[in-house]
Amino acid sequence: MSEDEQTLARVALTWLAEPGTRSVHQLVDDLGPVGALDLLLDGGAPEEALRDGVAARLSGGDARAVAAEAVGRATRLGARVVVPGDDEWPRRVADLRKLRLSGKQRRVDRETAPPLCFWVRGPWPLAEALDRSVAVVGARAASAYGTHVATDLAYGLADRGWTVVSGGAFGIDAAAHRGALAAGGVTVAVLACGIDRPYPMGNAALFDRIADTGLLVSEWLPGAEPLRPRFLIRNRVIAASTLGTVLVEAAARSGATQTTHRALGLGRGAMVVPGPVTSAMSVGAHEMLRENREARLVTGLAHVLEEVGRIGELAPVPRGPDRPTDLLDDEARAIIEAMPRRGTVAVDTLAARAGVGVRTVLRKLSLLEELTLVVRRDDGYALVSMPRSTARGR
Amino acid sequence: MSEDEQTLARVALTWLAEPGTRSVHQLVDDLGPVGALDLLLDGGAPEEALRDGVAARLSGGDARAVAAEAVGRATRLGARVVVPGDDEWPRRVADLRKLRLSGKQRRVDRETAPPLCFWVRGPWPLAEALDRSVAVVGARAASAYGTHVATDLAYGLADRGWTVVSGGAFGIDAAAHRGALAAGGVTVAVLACGIDRPYPMGNAALFDRIADTGLLVSEWLPGAEPLRPRFLIRNRVIAASTLGTVLVEAAARSGATQTTHRALGLGRGAMVVPGPVTSAMSVGAHEMLRENREARLVTGLAHVLEEVGRIGELAPVPRGPDRPTDLLDDEARAIIEAMPRRGTVAVDTLAARAGVGVRTVLRKLSLLEELTLVVRRDDGYALVSMPRSTARGR
Repeated sequence: MSEDEQTLARVALTWLAEPGTRSVHQLVDDLGPVGALDLLLDGGAPEEALRDGVAARLSGGDARAVAAEAVGRATRLGARVVVPGDDEWPRRVADLRKLRLSGKQRRVDRETAPPLCFWVRGPWPLAEALDRSVAVVGARAASAYGTHVATDLAYGLADRGWTVVSGGAFGIDAAAHRGALAAGGVTVAVLACGIDRPYPMGNAALFDRIADTGLLVSEWLPGAEPLRPRFLIRNRVIAASTLGTVLVEAAARSGATQTTHRALGLGRGAMVVPGPVTSAMSVGAHEMLRENREARLVTGLAHVLEEVGRIGELAPVPRGPDRPTDLLDDEARAIIEAMPRRGTVAVDTLAARAGVGVRTVLRKLSLLEELTLVVRRDDGYALVSMPRSTARGR
Repeated sequence: MSEDEQTLARVALTWLAEPGTRSVHQLVDDLGPVGALDLLLDGGAPEEALRDGVAARLSGGDARAVAAEAVGRATRLGARVVVPGDDEWPRRVADLRKLRLSGKQRRVDRETAPPLCFWVRGPWPLAEALDRSVAVVGARAASAYGTHVATDLAYGLADRGWTVVSGGAFGIDAAAHRGALAAGGVTVAVLACGIDRPYPMGNAALFDRIADTGLLVSEWLPGAEPLRPRFLIRNRVIAASTLGTVLVEAAARSGATQTTHRALGLGRGAMVVPGPVTSAMSVGAHEMLRENREARLVTGLAHVLEEVGRIGELAPVPRGPDRPTDLLDDEARAIIEAMPRRGTVAVDTLAARAGVGVRTVLRKLSLLEELTLVVRRDDGYALVSMPRSTARGR
């Protein structure tokens, strides 16, 4: 069975049943993608609803032919399909297997199996882009306050080498992508529709910029429409592919909190930015903080870095070899994390960023120099560049 | 030994050593106030610092004479001294005995013994005014946002029959007192100086209004100056005499959080209003929430009532006879608590205030009518007035 055949089968399965469907994922586990596809095509789906859905789909075309055509279309767009086993497959999404939520929830909330494949457009290997990533999500009808906070936070994260993941929507999502782009960083938009027609159209110029320097990602075939439930299905990927999710503004009982709930369920950092209690756009954020003891109030970059640093260490995903920075005490690590990925930084800037006194910074820097982790230059200190796999590998 | 002699001894002890001093409180426990005073006057204080302080004080006058003069001065002002055992002594402050904080803290943070006496000015029995009370405290340099939130919250609390306690300072404290006054409610200013010279002078008109309809309270003798450490010593009384403390705005590492820490230490409700992360005046509030798992984020009246309701039920303070409302279920109790102390309320207003559906409110109201707890009037429902000791006694 060729690799291509397996990839096509995964694509065909995604076309036949919405991503996240647990029973389909189970079939793939049991029979492999080709066997699972054959079973579905033979009308052998284990659930009636799934059988009906597959039959309805098949009346519109041949699954393998649709899949092959979609891959051709993607290739012409400069996009690619990524499947488990590929070098750039983001292993962290496998944690979705463990995410079991109450049976009382809506189907889109219950069906949270890992993705079968990703459509990817942009210059970065997907796994590398997501390795050190934080999601910044929130309300579409964001206030000026929320937009400001999201932009600022995303800028700071990107500036320190973190990838900013969001959903490409108006409001907080767009502000997060823009902030990361402004810092010259990497940002990933995880879409709920085909990557050839990113939604909403009003963000078209933004999507173009993201595709140039970051990544557009989707589980759905090119041409797929942004149906309403797909946004909720998509959210599990945003939560699972990042080390933490920051919620900036959400109205009462808003869908914008769903990604943060997923992050909580996965043991990722679930972070919430508070706001004025007089603002309707912060009601959902405050609810989230009141109702979830594990959700963490964050007011800015330092808090987010503290949280994803912690989660990064606790994360159960397979890690590469230890990094030298693992040996450092909290202050030294804070200093290393506050250093820019490229270029030098002045000591007082570093002290302010790390939240450590200048004298301590100087003492620790001289130790870090001895460990050859930092180097002193005329205009400040710089990180000693390490091989990527050591510096970022995990 | 006459009652007056004991009261005068308590006053003299307060003059000789700052309120809260644990060793003095221990002496009073062991020897009674008169015996403790005699011991101190004989130079027998158990700690050198205390002996030195007493000696310095005594060079300025005779302790018993000073105390007698202070009581005379207070009487001429229309004020009174209240001591443990008096009907109006607020028993809840005795919980300060249990408050033990780390020895590493500053003296004013460590020395948190219960008060020896209170100077009180105003028309309410102190214990009754504090029975159902919430503290609303925060920054002096409050923002328009914080002032608005504090006023609004205090208004709502007072409107529902809760006493609003604060410290009489500019900013949040003054806003809290004003909000309560605007609702025609009871507010108590706990001062860090003599009640004849409430500080700050700029709030003089406010203090006059509080003395007319609420209470001015202090541990210090008339004429005592508002020395800096006294504000921190005073804070323990604000925390201990109320069922919960709401922090509205505090700058980073601000003294305004100290009262909330005391509330936490005493098992009272420690509530914090979040704000914009872009506001320096909310940094301390957000720190408080991040660093204290037991501190509760509140965004308004409903959250505060929920919290003090819970604390009120758990509170270990001695209670008087049960009230009829103790027998009610949560919804009925919410409805009773949402009713105005005076006048009538429309059903839909009541439903909105209580957070209970209109149909439920109607059902419960008819039961409450049967219990003669509420009465139906032409323009709505009203509380049936009960003897004060039953309605508010605890």
